[in-house]
Amino acid sequence: MTKGAATKQAILHQGVEAAYRVGLSGLTIGELAGATGISKSGLYAHFRSKEALQLAVLARARAEFTDTVIRPALAAPRGEPRVRELFERWLECGRLRLPGGCLFVKASTELDEQQGPVRDQLARDHKDLYETIAQIFRTGIAERHFREDADPDQFAVDLDGVMLAFYHWHRLLNDSLAETRARRSFGALLAAARA
Amino acid sequence: MTKGAATKQAILHQGVEAAYRVGLSGLTIGELAGATGISKSGLYAHFRSKEALQLAVLARARAEFTDTVIRPALAAPRGEPRVRELFERWLECGRLRLPGGCLFVKASTELDEQQGPVRDQLARDHKDLYETIAQIFRTGIAERHFREDADPDQFAVDLDGVMLAFYHWHRLLNDSLAETRARRSFGALLAAARA
Repeated sequence: MTKGAATKQAILHQGVEAAYRVGLSGLTIGELAGATGISKSGLYAHFRSKEALQLAVLARARAEFTDTVIRPALAAPRGEPRVRELFERWLECGRLRLPGGCLFVKASTELDEQQGPVRDQLARDHKDLYETIAQIFRTGIAERHFREDADPDQFAVDLDGVMLAFYHWHRLLNDSLAETRARRSFGALLAAARA
Repeated sequence: MTKGAATKQAILHQGVEAAYRVGLSGLTIGELAGATGISKSGLYAHFRSKEALQLAVLARARAEFTDTVIRPALAAPRGEPRVRELFERWLECGRLRLPGGCLFVKASTELDEQQGPVRDQLARDHKDLYETIAQIFRTGIAERHFREDADPDQFAVDLDGVMLAFYHWHRLLNDSLAETRARRSFGALLAAARA
């Protein structure tokens, strides 16, 4: 990575943290200038508009989520161990409030009634994520860990629900049982896929 | 209801819609003045501060959710029919994008990292909701529709996940299968409670 590219990624990481704090819509070049200490004109050299900045921050959040959750899951053995690794990494991402993962949850409810390229990109990112989950689940069917007629797309929706409920109970309610509940929900999904 | 009280409820309903659009943090007396056509000074007579306005809007959203989801569920026969009525009403609330229900989803991710009385009230509202879900589920154990050792609190978390995933897939992804998926997830929860 060149020095310029590394600087840009470091700026974008701060952008992810700022967007997680103030919302993606609140992420302006002025806001990012305040967070990074870089002048507005310096930031304009990297990002020509608020929209370009928001898209770049989303791309950075996606890369961070891929590095911390998806890539380690794909490195695990195919089948149920891979599904379990996905769950563990994702849970840790929510438990530690890693901005990359959480930004997707926040931005989803923030932008769902809006129009435009940022919302469209966010929806595409989620579709990609759900296809990846279904694909990971399918390795469990191929390895005969799960029933042949188990539905990978339904599993992706159900796992999404488990994680969203976990975020809700852990972050808004500070419920000490949030993780235990999420593990039970996930265990029930696996049991249903195996039976 | 006196004329003054009715006016206040009508203003607050528009406040719920505005908060659903711009976020609860974006809901200022100026924003509400723009949405209602009432002067800022007129609104100040009703709400002394931005925080008082936000708390009143949350209370109004809670009342709307109770009227459209909770009250009809409690009017259904005890046990599984009551749980099903709760699910159907809640699903409709998300499907029609009724601002009262959706505001709770939006405000949860918006405020979860903040501090203060609005966030605390939102968390209390959710705890009340989950206790109500667990209580409704318990009537199903009492009526022997569900297993004696089924866990009402776990059911509340799981149903929360089903609804959050439904909102996600219906609203962000515009997925035509969102409702079918939610019905399957809910059916699996009921089947597990009965088995």
